Amino acid sequence: MTLRDLIAAKRDGHRHSAEDLKLLARAAAEGSAPDYQLSAWLMAAYLNGLDEEETAALTLAMAGTGERLDLSALPKPWVDKHSTGGVGDKTTIALLPILAAAGLTVVKMSGRGLGITGGTVDKLASIPGFRLDLSPDEMIAQAGRIGLALTGQTPRLAPADKTLYALRDATETVASLPLIVSSILSKKIAGGAEVLGLDVKCGSGAFMADLEHARALASALKRIGERCGLSVHTTITDMDQPLGRTVGNALEVREAFDTLIPGSTPTRFGGLVRHLAAETLVAVQHAQSLAEGITIVDGLLAAGKPLDRARAWVDAQGGDPGVVDGAPGLTGAIAVIDVRSPREGFAARVDARTVGQVVVALGGGRQAANDAIDPAVGVETLVEVGDRVEAGSPVFRIHAKSPDDARVAASSLIGGLTLAQDPVSPIPVVLESSS
Amino acid sequence: MTLRDLIAAKRDGHRHSAEDLKLLARAAAEGSAPDYQLSAWLMAAYLNGLDEEETAALTLAMAGTGERLDLSALPKPWVDKHSTGGVGDKTTIALLPILAAAGLTVVKMSGRGLGITGGTVDKLASIPGFRLDLSPDEMIAQAGRIGLALTGQTPRLAPADKTLYALRDATETVASLPLIVSSILSKKIAGGAEVLGLDVKCGSGAFMADLEHARALASALKRIGERCGLSVHTTITDMDQPLGRTVGNALEVREAFDTLIPGSTPTRFGGLVRHLAAETLVAVQHAQSLAEGITIVDGLLAAGKPLDRARAWVDAQGGDPGVVDGAPGLTGAIAVIDVRSPREGFAARVDARTVGQVVVALGGGRQAANDAIDPAVGVETLVEVGDRVEAGSPVFRIHAKSPDDARVAASSLIGGLTLAQDPVSPIPVVLESSS
Repeated sequence: MTLRDLIAAKRDGHRHSAEDLKLLARAAAEGSAPDYQLSAWLMAAYLNGLDEEETAALTLAMAGTGERLDLSALPKPWVDKHSTGGVGDKTTIALLPILAAAGLTVVKMSGRGLGITGGTVDKLASIPGFRLDLSPDEMIAQAGRIGLALTGQTPRLAPADKTLYALRDATETVASLPLIVSSILSKKIAGGAEVLGLDVKCGSGAFMADLEHARALASALKRIGERCGLSVHTTITDMDQPLGRTVGNALEVREAFDTLIPGSTPTRFGGLVRHLAAETLVAVQHAQSLAEGITIVDGLLAAGKPLDRARAWVDAQGGDPGVVDGAPGLTGAIAVIDVRSPREGFAARVDARTVGQVVVALGGGRQAANDAIDPAVGVETLVEVGDRVEAGSPVFRIHAKSPDDARVAASSLIGGLTLAQDPVSPIPVVLESSS
Repeated sequence: MTLRDLIAAKRDGHRHSAEDLKLLARAAAEGSAPDYQLSAWLMAAYLNGLDEEETAALTLAMAGTGERLDLSALPKPWVDKHSTGGVGDKTTIALLPILAAAGLTVVKMSGRGLGITGGTVDKLASIPGFRLDLSPDEMIAQAGRIGLALTGQTPRLAPADKTLYALRDATETVASLPLIVSSILSKKIAGGAEVLGLDVKCGSGAFMADLEHARALASALKRIGERCGLSVHTTITDMDQPLGRTVGNALEVREAFDTLIPGSTPTRFGGLVRHLAAETLVAVQHAQSLAEGITIVDGLLAAGKPLDRARAWVDAQGGDPGVVDGAPGLTGAIAVIDVRSPREGFAARVDARTVGQVVVALGGGRQAANDAIDPAVGVETLVEVGDRVEAGSPVFRIHAKSPDDARVAASSLIGGLTLAQDPVSPIPVVLESSS
């Protein structure tokens, strides 16, 4: 078997064996095959598909192309989480300290953002000094001390995915369920976790715009993950309006840590974080039900344990732990202006895609993989779907590099807000859950 | 529109406009798009197809990426021929002098061989001094003097095809009718001819192994060619047994010129050459019927006019014209041995593929694009299907670099010969013809 044989086989709709897919993954990881052959195979796989057995075999083959983190020195359960990406999705930053406070071990690799979906690595990079280049040994040592560690993607884990993902991005072969699933899961398997929570975002600000596609992805991730030996629980969550009150890197870090402060006002974003934490507690059998999980999480939050864990985390990775409590350190934007509602009504739509695009345009996200990011810029969304809005009341707050940038952003943002005359129901943040 | 948009459109089964295909052809010709994007498009086009309008537009777009020969200084009709390639196919070398002797203008680009199908350029290169690097100006000046000129492929004509063909070869996307047709015709259109004779080979030694596929290719070439403004006539000819008595570069040149000698014994190969020449005479309306065409051709041959034209041709391109009449000059092999029939019977099969593979193994063809070729080696097939064979009579003659090579070849060749007890009908050389 050669890569050419594999291309021809998938072109003709045949199945690949596990050995075939190891050959493919090795070729991608080692650079031993030309990119044009890999991309021809990707298009054939996109059009003719991979069945679940093939997808699981590809996942394991990709996970096997690099190092695999050995967590055996750490207390179980070993948990990880993944979001399919959305506008304002700072969930990881609030969730990880809760999971660690609950006694779980979280060793996580996070990605950088591209387009309207931000990346946790970019958000945490807005904390001065915060290191995102921990080695495997540093990760494990830190998780041993404080229960959690997070770093950026490393080419040492699942290097085949790095090659294939870059090619998929350049050849319009991203939107293939088997290729998406194997890309996500291969990195998680290489990261060493055994229990994986998957947050599948659904709506205008997410990769999956409708519930049907989100369900298909969630279901495939769960089935393939379990075939690969992971325990997987999935949650489909709303991404039609931005998640939380802020979109923009430093702003989101602030909001994430605020959620951990005992006695802070309950928010829609906080509700998602508590739900995902409770689901994980159920998955690792620390809670018998979601309700019991929520009770445990709320107890931890009230006692300030996750906040403690967040301080320890920032400290361990080189930042000033005072940032967690609101100390200066997160850089500020030059121009901060409010966008006011032209009339009264009920917020019927706060379009996540629009807000995401505005933040990218302000410099807070990447249009291309090598773009630089300004951590300070962003947008606060001051209304959520269902809120009553008065004429002249502020609906967005823009943090920009210049007043000109802010003015351009303001006119775009107004287009993303739809007001209705009659009352509108809020959109639940959790749409469906597998547990 | 970008190349990425084109990949996505073809991936989703949409049609391309002529403008789209110009963008694609330019990207391939100018190297402005990465190979991995072109190969993703090629796989999408392979699997989702191009309709006839798209195929014609791609053909014209590829033809438009480089220079186009301007034959306007030469007398009409301007004719060209193309063979889809087979074992022992030296037709061009005998046909062109006949067409020139009949007063037609032939300006032709020929390819190098790859695998079992030889290339006219390789065959002519066995004539010492024969130039195959004529410039467009040299081609036109020579055709003006003697009616014919032939050179190797130049990247100056249809450069998009050169890029796309190399990628198709490496990504298992060769066997697509629209891609085959546009590749062949784009080079012919850039070559400037108006009347094109296409010899579609059919059988074990050809790209199309059965009549159904050969018909589909012939029909597509004719329809798309006519959409592009060419006058096209097609002939489907047998390639189940090797064409003519010889396979191997210098041997085939000798056989081709022998066919032009007045009074030479009629052969199956000579019959094909006369048929193709007569078809072209009908296509350019120099003959009213195939029979009248054959009469004209036979008259020219009897008068020695094509032989004269062949001498002038070899002379014009730098070779010794005496080679045409059998002067030494074509290099000889070191070991020449006969393979004898183990028993008596009637030749039921002389497998073209087997003979082709033996000649490649002897060093007379290329396994990879950059392999060197030995012009002297080859195989003479001393029997044709239908011939009576005596036990111990010679059936093949091997021309090899060494006795060891010859012995290996001999055992393979015997496997390519099938004898029957009862008489067998010969295979006609012309299977179907469009005129």
